[in-house]
Amino acid sequence: MSLIVQKFGGSSVADAESIKRVAKRIVETRKAGNQVVVAVSAMGDTTDDLIDLAHQVAPLPDPREMDMLLTTGERISMALLAMAIKSMGHDARSFTGSQAGMITDARHGAARIVDVTPVRVQEALDEGAIAIVAGFQGFNRDSRDITTLGRGGSDTTAVALAAALGAEVCEIYTDVDGVFTADPRVVKKAHKISRVTSEEMLELAAAGAKVLHIRAVEFARRHGVTLHVRSSFSPNEGTWVVTPTEGEVMEEPIITGVAGDLSEAKITVVGVPDTPGMAADIFTIVAETGANIDMIVQNVSAAATSRTDISFTLPKTDGEKVMTALRAAQPGLGFESLAYDDQIGKLSVVGGGMRTSAGVSAQLFTALKDAGINMEMISTSEIRISVVMRADILHHALQIVHTAFGLDGEAEAVVYAGTGR
Amino acid sequence: MSLIVQKFGGSSVADAESIKRVAKRIVETRKAGNQVVVAVSAMGDTTDDLIDLAHQVAPLPDPREMDMLLTTGERISMALLAMAIKSMGHDARSFTGSQAGMITDARHGAARIVDVTPVRVQEALDEGAIAIVAGFQGFNRDSRDITTLGRGGSDTTAVALAAALGAEVCEIYTDVDGVFTADPRVVKKAHKISRVTSEEMLELAAAGAKVLHIRAVEFARRHGVTLHVRSSFSPNEGTWVVTPTEGEVMEEPIITGVAGDLSEAKITVVGVPDTPGMAADIFTIVAETGANIDMIVQNVSAAATSRTDISFTLPKTDGEKVMTALRAAQPGLGFESLAYDDQIGKLSVVGGGMRTSAGVSAQLFTALKDAGINMEMISTSEIRISVVMRADILHHALQIVHTAFGLDGEAEAVVYAGTGR
Repeated sequence: MSLIVQKFGGSSVADAESIKRVAKRIVETRKAGNQVVVAVSAMGDTTDDLIDLAHQVAPLPDPREMDMLLTTGERISMALLAMAIKSMGHDARSFTGSQAGMITDARHGAARIVDVTPVRVQEALDEGAIAIVAGFQGFNRDSRDITTLGRGGSDTTAVALAAALGAEVCEIYTDVDGVFTADPRVVKKAHKISRVTSEEMLELAAAGAKVLHIRAVEFARRHGVTLHVRSSFSPNEGTWVVTPTEGEVMEEPIITGVAGDLSEAKITVVGVPDTPGMAADIFTIVAETGANIDMIVQNVSAAATSRTDISFTLPKTDGEKVMTALRAAQPGLGFESLAYDDQIGKLSVVGGGMRTSAGVSAQLFTALKDAGINMEMISTSEIRISVVMRADILHHALQIVHTAFGLDGEAEAVVYAGTGR
Repeated sequence: MSLIVQKFGGSSVADAESIKRVAKRIVETRKAGNQVVVAVSAMGDTTDDLIDLAHQVAPLPDPREMDMLLTTGERISMALLAMAIKSMGHDARSFTGSQAGMITDARHGAARIVDVTPVRVQEALDEGAIAIVAGFQGFNRDSRDITTLGRGGSDTTAVALAAALGAEVCEIYTDVDGVFTADPRVVKKAHKISRVTSEEMLELAAAGAKVLHIRAVEFARRHGVTLHVRSSFSPNEGTWVVTPTEGEVMEEPIITGVAGDLSEAKITVVGVPDTPGMAADIFTIVAETGANIDMIVQNVSAAATSRTDISFTLPKTDGEKVMTALRAAQPGLGFESLAYDDQIGKLSVVGGGMRTSAGVSAQLFTALKDAGINMEMISTSEIRISVVMRADILHHALQIVHTAFGLDGEAEAVVYAGTGR
């Protein structure tokens, strides 16, 4: 008997009808002879509604109480899901993060999993029941308080349970058929990828592919959990995300997919004195704000002035606090000015085969040049090349590049109703 | 420093504005130099909405999962209340029933409190924080599952905490000024009672007074907890519900108040063979349905037939299941027929002074006779007389009796907006 962990997001359990549909899907997996553990998100917009409510009673809600509040969301969906399954004649039991042994550190709102002890989940499985676990939440042993894992938390819950229970596969249900060579809402001829390495998936997620949360992919890679990203609206196979074991050789395509990201902004620190350690000073100040920096480019110093410009990209949501911190540090650092630009788009091409294939950068840059698209920043990893351009041209560039690398499918991709995630 | 337990019901925390108002009230109590523990219900109609949702996914929701679902209601309100208090600059910490040590038996949906170990609540108080506890919920040690206490559960949570923590008083906040000599929405000249014994309050609650739940009053009486029923909309003193200690003599008014109840129905078992043990057989069958029987009247047997009629009252909500059970037992019991009447009203007069004053029954019966009101059933306790009549005449009878016993106040009672409870 195989053990399968299934994760259903908020759009899959948005109302009573959806919950019954998901329950049926879970029961089918059970009837096929598998043990089933389910990680479930809060229904539809529940989490956002609760956040709104919190801000109505307190301008800066206490983080401990915020977690107490938000964790009700998954508790509602998991209880309803368990009821629905039971009323179909199958045994099911729901567990909060705490009951399922999701032990975290004490960082309310963004807790990290430090241990997973799913004793009660295992007991339920041993007794033949389907276990439904609240995604996104955990428990800190020292404070005895409830915590939440932050965005992408439910994916991470599912993967952590799959690792702790030794599941054969962790199925991530979503409203698209799997991972695509590009966002099918932007690139019409994007096609589903049937198999991708966790390393490539990590780069795709980091580059803006929304289908899987980067944190869950990283957890899966570290613990060797196989993911299967698939649609909750169809029985089709989705995308398998696999982690080759040491020594295992996989034939990887040169380019797996392209991804676009409009969520970042660019900050340029203009006229930085070109003295040793100045970049370190700047990025220490940035790090202290807790912001996640993505790309960094330092222009060559203009010899005449001994001054240089440093640009970096970061999530728009972190923009204000970083600008504020840098402005406060301006007298000490002695730079000339700051520029903030939130009209940028980032295009990335990802593929494990890049390691052994020369000329991918040249091919990308040529395709963009031929289309008259100007590149503002470039950064590369072993299996990814990212380029920053104007935001309004990103979608067009994604189409161009998708075609240039021969990724276009035969037909247009099917996009289901729903709002991504 | 005194310890005060305060209980706020669902209508007191129905929206963000109400929550902020309640938070302010709690903070005032804290600033007056008291330690404060708060038991809070779910916001407004949350519980009913969750029950609806459950019935949409499962016709007969699993009781364990129902409790998992419903307990989110108080968790939302307690977290919001704690946030609101913190944002006013006072320390506050919310606790679930489980965290607050409300240990119950395993009867999901109607659990009984078996132990209260509020260690974390006491810790919070010791550290100067206000403790906010979810009403209505507990935890079963054997199954490690979440339970709910059933209707009136939040009042009971408050009283149980007050008993366990040795609170000076347990304040029950409601949308009326306290306990009245009659329902002020029915009897315009009803006036607030400033002091009532827990025994009288118990009879009033059993007789239909909605302001306090009978279970909470009983818990308070057993543990000597003083209750103060008061309005969350005004700073006025409300009604003190006290339990005189052994030997303490209290001057009690002959009549404390009158109460009406339209929630009951009457079942008559017609033509019961007048043989020994027949009543026992009937009420064994009724008891097996779990219904709560109130009054029982057996008519004198008509000598010619050796048959008798037995009537009893019970909550309308239990009517159908009891009728079904009796119909099934008709062949065995050999009675002639069953009659169901849900158009009855029960009027009760309650007063501790009845014990030592003769003639109260006579006074009541005379008042009703003078008004042309027919009595269908009568039952009495040491400090209560209840009379069943036609439902449509109950409100008129309450006015008559309130006046007859000299309870009318000088002015009309103020009734706040709101729906009772």
